[in-house]
Amino acid sequence: MAADPAARDVYVHHAFPEKQADLGEITMNYAETGDPSRPAVLLVPEQTGSWWGYEETMALLAQDFHVYAVDLRGQGRSSWTPKRYSLDNFGNDLVRFIALVVQRPVVVAGNSSGGVLAAWLSAYSMPGQIRGALCEDAPFFSSELVTTCGHSIRQAAGPLFDLFRTYLGDQWSVGDWAGYCRAAAASSSQMAGYFSADEIPQHMKEYDPEWARAFWEGTVALHCPHERMLTKVKTPVLLTHHMRGIDPETGTLIGAISDEQAARARALMESAGVPVSYESIPDALHMMHQFDPARYAKILTHWASSLPA
Amino acid sequence: MAADPAARDVYVHHAFPEKQADLGEITMNYAETGDPSRPAVLLVPEQTGSWWGYEETMALLAQDFHVYAVDLRGQGRSSWTPKRYSLDNFGNDLVRFIALVVQRPVVVAGNSSGGVLAAWLSAYSMPGQIRGALCEDAPFFSSELVTTCGHSIRQAAGPLFDLFRTYLGDQWSVGDWAGYCRAAAASSSQMAGYFSADEIPQHMKEYDPEWARAFWEGTVALHCPHERMLTKVKTPVLLTHHMRGIDPETGTLIGAISDEQAARARALMESAGVPVSYESIPDALHMMHQFDPARYAKILTHWASSLPA
Amino acid sequence: MAADPAARDVYVHHAFPEKQADLGEITMNYAETGDPSRPAVLLVPEQTGSWWGYEETMALLAQDFHVYAVDLRGQGRSSWTPKRYSLDNFGNDLVRFIALVVQRPVVVAGNSSGGVLAAWLSAYSMPGQIRGALCEDAPFFSSELVTTCGHSIRQAAGPLFDLFRTYLGDQWSVGDWAGYCRAAAASSSQMAGYFSADEIPQHMKEYDPEWARAFWEGTVALHCPHERMLTKVKTPVLLTHHMRGIDPETGTLIGAISDEQAARARALMESAGVPVSYESIPDALHMMHQFDPARYAKILTHWASSLPA
Amino acid sequence: MAADPAARDVYVHHAFPEKQADLGEITMNYAETGDPSRPAVLLVPEQTGSWWGYEETMALLAQDFHVYAVDLRGQGRSSWTPKRYSLDNFGNDLVRFIALVVQRPVVVAGNSSGGVLAAWLSAYSMPGQIRGALCEDAPFFSSELVTTCGHSIRQAAGPLFDLFRTYLGDQWSVGDWAGYCRAAAASSSQMAGYFSADEIPQHMKEYDPEWARAFWEGTVALHCPHERMLTKVKTPVLLTHHMRGIDPETGTLIGAISDEQAARARALMESAGVPVSYESIPDALHMMHQFDPARYAKILTHWASSLPA
Repeated sequence: MAADPAARDVYVHHAFPEKQADLGEITMNYAETGDPSRPAVLLVPEQTGSWWGYEETMALLAQDFHVYAVDLRGQGRSSWTPKRYSLDNFGNDLVRFIALVVQRPVVVAGNSSGGVLAAWLSAYSMPGQIRGALCEDAPFFSSELVTTCGHSIRQAAGPLFDLFRTYLGDQWSVGDWAGYCRAAAASSSQMAGYFSADEIPQHMKEYDPEWARAFWEGTVALHCPHERMLTKVKTPVLLTHHMRGIDPETGTLIGAISDEQAARARALMESAGVPVSYESIPDALHMMHQFDPARYAKILTHWASSLPA
Repeated sequence: MAADPAARDVYVHHAFPEKQADLGEITMNYAETGDPSRPAVLLVPEQTGSWWGYEETMALLAQDFHVYAVDLRGQGRSSWTPKRYSLDNFGNDLVRFIALVVQRPVVVAGNSSGGVLAAWLSAYSMPGQIRGALCEDAPFFSSELVTTCGHSIRQAAGPLFDLFRTYLGDQWSVGDWAGYCRAAAASSSQMAGYFSADEIPQHMKEYDPEWARAFWEGTVALHCPHERMLTKVKTPVLLTHHMRGIDPETGTLIGAISDEQAARARALMESAGVPVSYESIPDALHMMHQFDPARYAKILTHWASSLPA
Repeated sequence: MAADPAARDVYVHHAFPEKQADLGEITMNYAETGDPSRPAVLLVPEQTGSWWGYEETMALLAQDFHVYAVDLRGQGRSSWTPKRYSLDNFGNDLVRFIALVVQRPVVVAGNSSGGVLAAWLSAYSMPGQIRGALCEDAPFFSSELVTTCGHSIRQAAGPLFDLFRTYLGDQWSVGDWAGYCRAAAASSSQMAGYFSADEIPQHMKEYDPEWARAFWEGTVALHCPHERMLTKVKTPVLLTHHMRGIDPETGTLIGAISDEQAARARALMESAGVPVSYESIPDALHMMHQFDPARYAKILTHWASSLPA
Repeated sequence: MAADPAARDVYVHHAFPEKQADLGEITMNYAETGDPSRPAVLLVPEQTGSWWGYEETMALLAQDFHVYAVDLRGQGRSSWTPKRYSLDNFGNDLVRFIALVVQRPVVVAGNSSGGVLAAWLSAYSMPGQIRGALCEDAPFFSSELVTTCGHSIRQAAGPLFDLFRTYLGDQWSVGDWAGYCRAAAASSSQMAGYFSADEIPQHMKEYDPEWARAFWEGTVALHCPHERMLTKVKTPVLLTHHMRGIDPETGTLIGAISDEQAARARALMESAGVPVSYESIPDALHMMHQFDPARYAKILTHWASSLPA
């Protein structure tokens, strides 16, 4: 596949039109809906996801918000940037998007690594950009290679990312989907086979597997230790915590974040002096926003209504 | 010393008043002078430098420009940010400074690592922020740990930075200036003793030695390979190339950038389709802007006059 | 201090005479006692320890064994080898020592990282060298930077090693003992202050702090993942497990190895098809061999009597 | 392919019978010829090579020597050891092979990385094992990721190894030979296509591509900086230096070692006080021993005759 997203054959029909914003280094693909007079919400997808995982959610949220959903660099139809995938670069893309497109304070809600970026924005964005951050099943600590609390990426989703980087390759250079599926089937990791399928799923086609390498090798968070970031949040935060468990044989984490890590993240954010809400939803899938949009929209809307204007 | 720059005793009298801008994560210290109706120039100091290394230059440039000179994170009186020193974070601070303070297109001129950041801004800033980039004796390639062209940091200024990180420590945690001087005297590197002095120089007191560790360990440029960055510049560039040589015994680079590296940097930037100027000034010191302000100001002014408005 | 152990002033009087063996790269310092007609035992001290931590134990064991106790490279009066501290290099020194000095099959018993090396020898030594391996409170997994099970070094003894590398420096280049003590007192880690004292303890004087850096940075085990090593053991193993606990606030490990990690280590070694014994001794100090020699000698003697000749 | 060399289908007919030695961790495959009353020679192949690259040379040397040629771990029919490829582990395998099989002092001659190992043995083997070391076109410095002199691996053979690790994968897990050939054809590196061929060459089938990753990522020499190793050699050394050049456009090294690096290696080895011979043979291919056995055998025999018994 071509590294230029415009040249990649990744388009499928969506309920909302796609737009592009020139942010300087990258072109960011996004969609928006809702009334501009309503509060702004920015939706940030998970690793391997694209903005359209929020399609149903967007329709629900449009009643109360002006909704933006984006593709990060290396996702969807946004630019691919070899060797430049890091939390700080993802985060500063969003800072620019808010400055240039949203142009007013926003509630940010991200899933998984997008949830880590919601916390990043709460901590590190420009003054006044963020009203609150919803971290949907965000892998605090558990997506770091070297972490200060609990399971590292190697003891969690890492084996899945290892297969992506190996069998798909940076920018799909290897592109051996069948090899990935075979290796996933043979893996002892319960998470390694998460995306196995005969056909390459659409969201995977839109994804630069170098993301996976950056997480497996730990470079993505090298300049952004989670512990420090969590102590720097400056806005209200809501952490939702979905299904999770521990593999009894190996002790590895099944899910995005352990109870120990969620508790530690809360404690660190509270030490920053901001309101921190926590909802344990062990019966929710990791991507609740995609698979249970009504529940997700209700949680977001309810919590956002509590935020200062 | 305290990590909070306001609590550190680093103030000395300067010719221009100091101001502070809240950029979200950091507070950036800066000074400005000149007529706001004139074109804007942004001056970015070298590693271990502070904005006031440009004091005499600022006075000269004030005749033709509205001049800003800044302290980067970890320099001068700007915030120290442990574990978060990277080219991308330095660069995005400047993006924010231009967006929030300068608020119009600017000519950026940086020395040494500040010159690398000038190229960074040319490549990666928000659209329309940069009119041109003056890279004053910028260590392209030679400040990378793993580089694609010529001497790496370990074969150049690295030994000096190794002593800083070892004897001064992150945030001056170790603080053994005498130990640094002794080790520098015993070092085989001609560059290791560059700053040896009985008293800690003022500019060093204002400097977070974790910068040195980030360069020695190569993390500073981990997500920003120079080769890729140079192929992405979007504005005219001027590279000035000062005194340099090769140690005949060890082959190490004495100076900031070798002739081979300067030629390669030019070729890569030209491949991006922008005007690239080059001035070889082998009789100039590395920090020409500080030690020969008249010459520096003349070069900058002359080149800037050629830039499109 | 000088890097040449012969030139360092590290001698104190001991109950047994010291000898030196030329192993090629290093000179290994050791002591021996007991009847050569008895079974051979090789004692390997912990990080920061020297052979003489076994002095009292040696006297007790001499009744039943021909006892050797060694200093590893970077310990005691053995050679210091900058940039060359790794489990494989430590282990191969012992392979050579057994080949050249002991010259017959041996029971190896090591404490802490010495216990990891006992397992290393069981897995990777030359055929027939090892009869059994006693791993005294060995930090399996917990002394790796990136581990497959439980706490990493950063969540265990790492903070102590970080202070050693920072305030003492490779080969005592920095040598700021007072600075270490101050930083240890201020640290939130319960283990950081383990060795604080007004005077530099004798065992620390004999220790190359680059060991600490190799553990903190994870390079020591880079080529020797514990999980793989444990599945390769070829002899009977005894793991003793001493006092341990979890810091309720941070979740960090206090002690050498967690219950989860000990269970996993046992399971992996059992999968290799060798007899694996385990003794939980939560009231024993980490260095039981030094602080409770009688108890230690009894355990070793009893277990060794069960080994095939 | 299976990781167990006995299970891999890698056998082809050879002029000399293959034998296996149990070294503890690995089984080393080797061949021998010549009169045991003659001086012993140990031949160590290059990365991607197997012992039988020396077949013709062995026949020639058999007149004057008792010749051994080996497969290193990850080569030929010796064991594959995932995550455990390092100069120190390769070297200590040879230490054991000499101790257990050769059982007397030996002249070691290695090509390319095998030549680096010849120097390793001169520096770090057990006392008395090595009489002299022939380093045939050995990539001193140029096979390090972070080096103190001249081109790093990334500026030399690295791009070839990058393609191996990407398209073949550790233990041939990916196994996309066609993908390697396509990527090599598209590469700007003159060395990347070195082994392109419609069929997988026999020597590549016998090779664990994790070797390539260990060199590309720099871990292979992490604990064995070349500069230090070269200052520790203890025997006479002969360095032969074959065809080499510099790519005029990129400055990258074409060949194994630059003139600058060869000179530096000689100077460092001479500082160790041993006789160092140097032969510049710019018209010889990198693997002279394989492609010009007569010339190679003559050089080795002549030089070996000068060694003290």
